Amino acid sequence: MVRSVENGGEAVEISPDHFDPTAVVPEPLPKVVESDGELVNAKSNGDREIVLGRNVHTTCLEVTEPDANDDFTGDKDAFMASILARYRKTLLERTKHHLGYPYNLDFDYGALAQLQHFSINNLGDPFIESNYGVHSRQFEVGVLDWFARLWEIEKDEYWGYITNCGTEGNLHGILVGREVFPDGILYASRETHYSVFKAARMYRMECVKVDTLVSGEIDCADFKVKLLAHKDKPAIINVNIGTTVKGAVDDLDLVIQTLEQSGFTHDRFYIHCDGALFGLMMPFVKRAPKVSFKKPIGSVSVSGHKFVGCPMPCGVQITRLEHINALSRDVEYLASRDATIMGSRNGHAPIFLWYTLNKKGYKGFQKEVQKCLRNAHYLKDRLLDAGISAMLNELSSTVVFERPWDEEFVRRWQLACQGNIAHVVVMPNVTIDKLDDFLSELVEKRSTWYQDGKVKPPCIAAEVGSENCLCTLHK
Amino acid sequence: MVRSVENGGEAVEISPDHFDPTAVVPEPLPKVVESDGELVNAKSNGDREIVLGRNVHTTCLEVTEPDANDDFTGDKDAFMASILARYRKTLLERTKHHLGYPYNLDFDYGALAQLQHFSINNLGDPFIESNYGVHSRQFEVGVLDWFARLWEIEKDEYWGYITNCGTEGNLHGILVGREVFPDGILYASRETHYSVFKAARMYRMECVKVDTLVSGEIDCADFKVKLLAHKDKPAIINVNIGTTVKGAVDDLDLVIQTLEQSGFTHDRFYIHCDGALFGLMMPFVKRAPKVSFKKPIGSVSVSGHKFVGCPMPCGVQITRLEHINALSRDVEYLASRDATIMGSRNGHAPIFLWYTLNKKGYKGFQKEVQKCLRNAHYLKDRLLDAGISAMLNELSSTVVFERPWDEEFVRRWQLACQGNIAHVVVMPNVTIDKLDDFLSELVEKRSTWYQDGKVKPPCIAAEVGSENCLCTLHK
Repeated sequence: MVRSVENGGEAVEISPDHFDPTAVVPEPLPKVVESDGELVNAKSNGDREIVLGRNVHTTCLEVTEPDANDDFTGDKDAFMASILARYRKTLLERTKHHLGYPYNLDFDYGALAQLQHFSINNLGDPFIESNYGVHSRQFEVGVLDWFARLWEIEKDEYWGYITNCGTEGNLHGILVGREVFPDGILYASRETHYSVFKAARMYRMECVKVDTLVSGEIDCADFKVKLLAHKDKPAIINVNIGTTVKGAVDDLDLVIQTLEQSGFTHDRFYIHCDGALFGLMMPFVKRAPKVSFKKPIGSVSVSGHKFVGCPMPCGVQITRLEHINALSRDVEYLASRDATIMGSRNGHAPIFLWYTLNKKGYKGFQKEVQKCLRNAHYLKDRLLDAGISAMLNELSSTVVFERPWDEEFVRRWQLACQGNIAHVVVMPNVTIDKLDDFLSELVEKRSTWYQDGKVKPPCIAAEVGSENCLCTLHK
Repeated sequence: MVRSVENGGEAVEISPDHFDPTAVVPEPLPKVVESDGELVNAKSNGDREIVLGRNVHTTCLEVTEPDANDDFTGDKDAFMASILARYRKTLLERTKHHLGYPYNLDFDYGALAQLQHFSINNLGDPFIESNYGVHSRQFEVGVLDWFARLWEIEKDEYWGYITNCGTEGNLHGILVGREVFPDGILYASRETHYSVFKAARMYRMECVKVDTLVSGEIDCADFKVKLLAHKDKPAIINVNIGTTVKGAVDDLDLVIQTLEQSGFTHDRFYIHCDGALFGLMMPFVKRAPKVSFKKPIGSVSVSGHKFVGCPMPCGVQITRLEHINALSRDVEYLASRDATIMGSRNGHAPIFLWYTLNKKGYKGFQKEVQKCLRNAHYLKDRLLDAGISAMLNELSSTVVFERPWDEEFVRRWQLACQGNIAHVVVMPNVTIDKLDDFLSELVEKRSTWYQDGKVKPPCIAAEVGSENCLCTLHK
């Protein structure tokens, strides 16, 4: 069953009504699409089916009860050590072949291994110490200050915290928006991350989807039409600083201008900037529109495990302090304040971020951003040279190209796909060598997929514009 | 400003309207209560003021830009190493003196240090592999199966995931309840964890607070009155398997019976069990009412960093598979399904849990639970012997006693306080020796606090019953 949170507009997801995660799927890398229980080929049946990954219940590592004499024989320890060693090998191989998700997998936190023995928990507010002493707030606030400086807001005017992931940042930003404007309408472009629509559903907010340009940016002409149709209610807007699939950056200045031109004064709208990946890259890109609290925005979120790199997901959320007093309550049990979405909070993540920010600094990030953009251009150019449809947005390191025909190839390189397109996100750990390996394998595979002419490379004009499409029709 | 999510009933929180987290607080351990900006003594002004911890902005570790020649001199590396070494010492000391929060700080995950170099992310659904290959779903599902067995639900009938903390479990359980009954009313006892009331506010649900007995358990007589007043709407009930402050276990069977007697058939209510700490202890306590999916419950959550012990917060959420199909949507970008609250999910936490469950097994946990209950009784008996008011619920290892007069003592032992009471949660790492140290220090300090008779030990009869109070009036 598909449930859509939007008001008006169609849903494109196809989802089995009664998906059974325990059904046995025999082969290790099945090229299947789940559709009401039937197995169908990914390509034979149109391109709107969603290819779901394999079912984990068939391969999970069961927890077993220790034997009475395990301590003596050491058998169980040996067994577990062998599982972990094999798992580590898999992780090495999988890390080596990863290209599709915006995670910087290149980090060395060896200096922090000594802290793994502690249960570090920043429960409650980052700025108010809880009675629980094993915390890392001094690192957390240091990191927050760094981001506040980056996004131009004074120390005594911001509030923020280290979240568990980009989704938590979006959930928080939109919740703050709703508390500021309880009857506000949430506007978000169609290419917005799914967590924003999830927030609308969770929070019971009216949500209006706005069209996008071919680039993936929000279409401000359509935005204006929709604003004018709902002039009676305040606007809460999610602005994408890098969309998930195409890495498109919404034009923040144009969004603000559109609001103003549609008669929304600054006390009638709230803007949350979802900067999952590019929120940290944009400040270092010349000509990029600036994300800044000097503009009338309410909150910015960015992921910590993406451009920075971190063993576990995390994110940074910054908002205006004035909004938080309305949202929060003091919790005596914690001797702290409850203004975060989560209660207990991972205290290791802030230390990882603090460590990398200190090592690299603004200058180090600037260098890495430039390298990523250069390598992304390299990949796009080589793809086009090889006759493969591809697009790269100006401010982005996300290279969009035709979806590879073979799902096994997709999984091997861990590409993220949607419809007829796939993408590679060029992160600091993605070198020219790695891209060359990928390119030569793709070119070789394509020559077998398409050799007899029965299957043709997909047309991706609808997704990226005909000027970027090299299918038989458009080249 | 205090905002209460409940319908009817009074709010007891006191919160400054414009709390300024950047205001400078000079002393390191201020004995202060923040109340509309004024500093007042914790005890001189009634016992409803909340003592907030100190402001972190004054002590945070600033992130600094590296110098151009840092790589050459190694100065910055040396500086950071010294900060981390000092921090590690603090953590050791703070871990040693911790008694107030239900975290088992005794774990050795040395065997897993080799995995810290990987960005492990279980984004999306645990049961459907995402295209991102660096994940730990095989461990996650193994852990979930273990808990499903514990709470008596078949592999093909449950769904669940490893959460970031107890709050995420409650947010998920109550969201599932609301999706099953969109117009349902949320019932929760007054001593319920604050995350449940936060959920009600986030989800825009009508919420009714139910009275508690002196033990801290839900008062089913009052529950019945409130159910009968809202017979027209379905009921969503949060049942506490161990309250935060008193460790009280709501009587699940009596709750179900009360629902039935009030005319609520099984298709008209949804029960979420918040088993933060005791959800994992209860199965091993003789005579304890059983948490089981053979009873008409919808979901159970438990924390992973509490009784199990884990470097970072995490939790386990188990619900019925039938409820999840209504809630979830497939996300093509992930090649997975979106039925969790968070999108990206920490892949290290499941491995920590898997490791401990394998090492200890059901039998190991049973032994540890028995030890904790024994030691908790020891602490309660010694407190009473020393003339200090104390209470211990039958099924609990949370010892409630008079709040120590000195906030510095409270912070030193990291006690959680509320009103006139404090508590110690006896976890597996809390030994008799540690308790003896604590007891002798408390007895010694009390003799100075109360020596001249000007200040008297607080009366805690209102909180724990006069039979447990040893104040001058009740002893």
